[in-house]
Amino acid sequence: MFRFLRVNMATKTCVFEDIPEEYAGLGGRALTSTIVAREVNPICTPLGPHNKLVFAPGLLGATNSPNGNRISVGCKSPLTEGIKEANSGGQPGGHLAKLGIMAIIVEDMATEGEWWQLELGKDSARLVPSTVAGLNNFDAVAKLVETYGDKCSYVTIGRAGEFKLTAASIAFTDRELRPMRHAGRGGVGAVMGSKGLKAIIINPEGGKNHPLVDEKAFREASKRFAKALTEHPITGKGLAEYGTGVLVNILHEAGGLPTANFTIGQFDGHEGVSGETMNRLTKERGGEGAVAHGCMSGCIIRCSGLFPDKQGKFQSKWPEYETLWSFGPHSGISDIDAVSRFDYMCDDIGVDTIDVGVAVGVAMAGGGIPYGDVEAVKAAMQGISDGTPLGRIIGCGTATTGRVFGVRRVPCVKGQSLPAYDPRAVKGVGVTYATTPMGADHTAGYAVTANILSCGGKVDPLKPEGQIELSRNLQIATASVDSVGLCLFTAFAILDIPDALAAIVDMLNAKYGWQLTGDDVVTLGQRILSTEIDFNRRAGITEAADHLPDFFVDEPVAPHNTTFDIPHEELKTVFNWIKK
Amino acid sequence: MFRFLRVNMATKTCVFEDIPEEYAGLGGRALTSTIVAREVNPICTPLGPHNKLVFAPGLLGATNSPNGNRISVGCKSPLTEGIKEANSGGQPGGHLAKLGIMAIIVEDMATEGEWWQLELGKDSARLVPSTVAGLNNFDAVAKLVETYGDKCSYVTIGRAGEFKLTAASIAFTDRELRPMRHAGRGGVGAVMGSKGLKAIIINPEGGKNHPLVDEKAFREASKRFAKALTEHPITGKGLAEYGTGVLVNILHEAGGLPTANFTIGQFDGHEGVSGETMNRLTKERGGEGAVAHGCMSGCIIRCSGLFPDKQGKFQSKWPEYETLWSFGPHSGISDIDAVSRFDYMCDDIGVDTIDVGVAVGVAMAGGGIPYGDVEAVKAAMQGISDGTPLGRIIGCGTATTGRVFGVRRVPCVKGQSLPAYDPRAVKGVGVTYATTPMGADHTAGYAVTANILSCGGKVDPLKPEGQIELSRNLQIATASVDSVGLCLFTAFAILDIPDALAAIVDMLNAKYGWQLTGDDVVTLGQRILSTEIDFNRRAGITEAADHLPDFFVDEPVAPHNTTFDIPHEELKTVFNWIKK
Repeated sequence: MFRFLRVNMATKTCVFEDIPEEYAGLGGRALTSTIVAREVNPICTPLGPHNKLVFAPGLLGATNSPNGNRISVGCKSPLTEGIKEANSGGQPGGHLAKLGIMAIIVEDMATEGEWWQLELGKDSARLVPSTVAGLNNFDAVAKLVETYGDKCSYVTIGRAGEFKLTAASIAFTDRELRPMRHAGRGGVGAVMGSKGLKAIIINPEGGKNHPLVDEKAFREASKRFAKALTEHPITGKGLAEYGTGVLVNILHEAGGLPTANFTIGQFDGHEGVSGETMNRLTKERGGEGAVAHGCMSGCIIRCSGLFPDKQGKFQSKWPEYETLWSFGPHSGISDIDAVSRFDYMCDDIGVDTIDVGVAVGVAMAGGGIPYGDVEAVKAAMQGISDGTPLGRIIGCGTATTGRVFGVRRVPCVKGQSLPAYDPRAVKGVGVTYATTPMGADHTAGYAVTANILSCGGKVDPLKPEGQIELSRNLQIATASVDSVGLCLFTAFAILDIPDALAAIVDMLNAKYGWQLTGDDVVTLGQRILSTEIDFNRRAGITEAADHLPDFFVDEPVAPHNTTFDIPHEELKTVFNWIKK
Repeated sequence: MFRFLRVNMATKTCVFEDIPEEYAGLGGRALTSTIVAREVNPICTPLGPHNKLVFAPGLLGATNSPNGNRISVGCKSPLTEGIKEANSGGQPGGHLAKLGIMAIIVEDMATEGEWWQLELGKDSARLVPSTVAGLNNFDAVAKLVETYGDKCSYVTIGRAGEFKLTAASIAFTDRELRPMRHAGRGGVGAVMGSKGLKAIIINPEGGKNHPLVDEKAFREASKRFAKALTEHPITGKGLAEYGTGVLVNILHEAGGLPTANFTIGQFDGHEGVSGETMNRLTKERGGEGAVAHGCMSGCIIRCSGLFPDKQGKFQSKWPEYETLWSFGPHSGISDIDAVSRFDYMCDDIGVDTIDVGVAVGVAMAGGGIPYGDVEAVKAAMQGISDGTPLGRIIGCGTATTGRVFGVRRVPCVKGQSLPAYDPRAVKGVGVTYATTPMGADHTAGYAVTANILSCGGKVDPLKPEGQIELSRNLQIATASVDSVGLCLFTAFAILDIPDALAAIVDMLNAKYGWQLTGDDVVTLGQRILSTEIDFNRRAGITEAADHLPDFFVDEPVAPHNTTFDIPHEELKTVFNWIKK
């Protein structure tokens, strides 16, 4: 029942294929990265016909595993020019898996200016002219729902993706058909736009959960995994109560909350954009707000929340910590309603809240937008949708914005912007930023765990010692988690509760009849990273790119007055299993 | 008498240094590239304190050699992120040489927002607060002349350099104190801007021609070289009559005149922007126009011309062929007065006419500027000086413009735009574009000679055979010519008249007491390229970057309907003396 779907945008053909032997045992990121590495010419133009866009649910998709329905999106990134995997929650991952589609491979491109949408159902797939071209995500999905109904799930790009802006995201609808879950990073939405693919409609009717080789063992392991998630204070309670916004105050206290484009590690207005404030206002305002909301079927962490405006009307999902930060402290804004509206605009227009939010703060540093000016940010954001020059600049993300405004302090690695943790005060995540083949990305090896949250041990965030090993282990584990289809937040439980990892391995073994051990998880993670790094080498991205911008090395950041003092030569040892 | 001048923008110190032994025998590009390779961290932020900006006259500077007073500018490029040498005519090269300053090394940076100017005289150098900050080049120089007089020469940046835009150039005054000779490519003006250095004033008083070991031999060799230049039809007559604009009709005939962003190789309006038209109008209009004008002392080729407006008032220098093309056929404009004014604006604001002109045509392809619309281009150009978002975008050059406007067909290699020769119809120059460590640059190995002009032999421009060797030999020879300080146009004579090269070697031997042979010229050229490529490797730019954008490989260009069919693997053999 498991197949690939190959969609050719030039010929408009949709072909189901048996899964080749060499892809057996791969899902999610392992699958997207392996397909991209094998099928895409590493030196191709990312927005041209030779790039491919791959969607893949994870190995635990379409099971009753908790939090197992994530979806990975892979391609050569037009932002980093290297390999990219961005993943998302929402319903499409589970729906695709239920239909037995383990990867959609979108090839070539339609005639420029034409827009198509892909209709998927049980054993059926076809491209038809798009009915929603020119619309942003919320309007596009609303119109698609009118045609295809509320049982389907939807994958769309907004205007930013149509414009092929390099911070464009791909939106996935949640359980209430809101296009608020995004494969955000690396410009995957621009690649979808370059192909002329505006939307994918997934009708799950007739799909079903995957067969399990040992149903009883699976059920037992799944329960153990659920128990671990429920027992851990972060996954069992913290995230549901405060969302990831709980980190605002924590990072402020730790002196690692980058403020005013990484000039200082604390923000006076932190309370205003904190998870605590979001929780309080959501409860006070009531109406369409919700605490403890999950973004996809099977989620038991329920971090996504719904944030109401002052009248109780839906205003946005709970912005993630990184969004609260990028449009907040980084840009000198402490108004949570403003940040919430920017989050909605990002979801609607279809851009990465990190690369665009950071671009806003960098534009401020370069004089392109007045510092802390909410109305000016709103106008710039609207400009993305309208295609104004300023809108297009910030819609291309931080690196482009920094270049256009002549900014020296541009917080990017491999062309992708740093997220919300100052690498001088949280050095483990600095190692991840510098070295991950994805370009700066906290999710690639979230060392904030041991550096700040005392999760999975404790490594002093201010000292260079131990950060390389911490980042290495997390990057390996994350590559595996992203392949299994699990939400990354399950990692909090995995790091602290030994039985959580054992339960995942047992679920995989019970589903597929494998005999994996914990060591195999490490081997899989290493294999994925090796594949990705090899693609990057062939694309021309070498170890020379594995470093932070000079200013993190040169300029101490208050309050700890530390610099990023892990030498480039040491950063080169992160992937120590790869022969040079 | 020969020294380096080291200028530290942070401490404001100017120190004359004896030239270290390891730099003996190097000048111009050989010197700038060697200094940059030794002193600049290849992974530094190009617009930060760790980059250095080096100015160096050539080995034949301050002699009576014809056309020997060019100046090289070197740094890590903010456009390509690799090593950069851009060179220029004008008076400063000769003046520096006469003062015995074989290199100015500008280090570190002033406090951001401060602007300084460097006053140079015989045995003196000091930094003073700039009196011309905020002015474009013509106004800046006019004001500097009021203070420092008309015997000095001037090096300035315009507003684009102040804004640190990555297509910003550095202007060098010609003999009439017009800032119209530019080190144009690679954003060297942005590096000067990043350092807070607005202008250099060079007072040549007390300077003198360099001592010659064998004066008689030098005079004799110099005469032979002048004879070769005078006898060759291109250097003796063609360039003085028509400027480089003579190439417009030639490339149109050859089907290699890229039109409408490289969609076709011929332009209906080619006559309008041709060198012949420029010559005719210059003569007809009279006034301040001039045919056969030289840009620097010692020039006997005199290609630069002065183009009058309809009232006979000075309008611009004769735009180079590449400028006539970028604002002309590439952008759908056939009005030579318009193009001339854009050339003036580029010189004034201080931007590369290639990277910005090509950006204009690419913005047109992306819908950002209406195709062929002179008034819209004028507004966009003014926007560079005014710092508007659109102005800043095109002021950052073609790669940024292509990204912002979501254009698939972006004619760049290593982030630098292709000049005026379609690589599918002039394949030798295509090899140069793809492989030179400078990013796409016709001057790095001008295979148009043998491909189109039957100069230095004949290699069919439409066939892949022989292009690798042609480009290799020209890249080696050019690196040497750029080090000697000779205008590149002397190469026409060098390629066709054997005694021209012999005369250059004899001049060098007579000046320095060396025993060079023609083989040493090859060795020097190879050594320079090796140094540059090694820097790029350490900066993270590998052979993977040595290729043209996909569309040149995929899409045949009319009228010959040829593609660029030299495989990437063959392109990797250009630098066949470098061990991998």
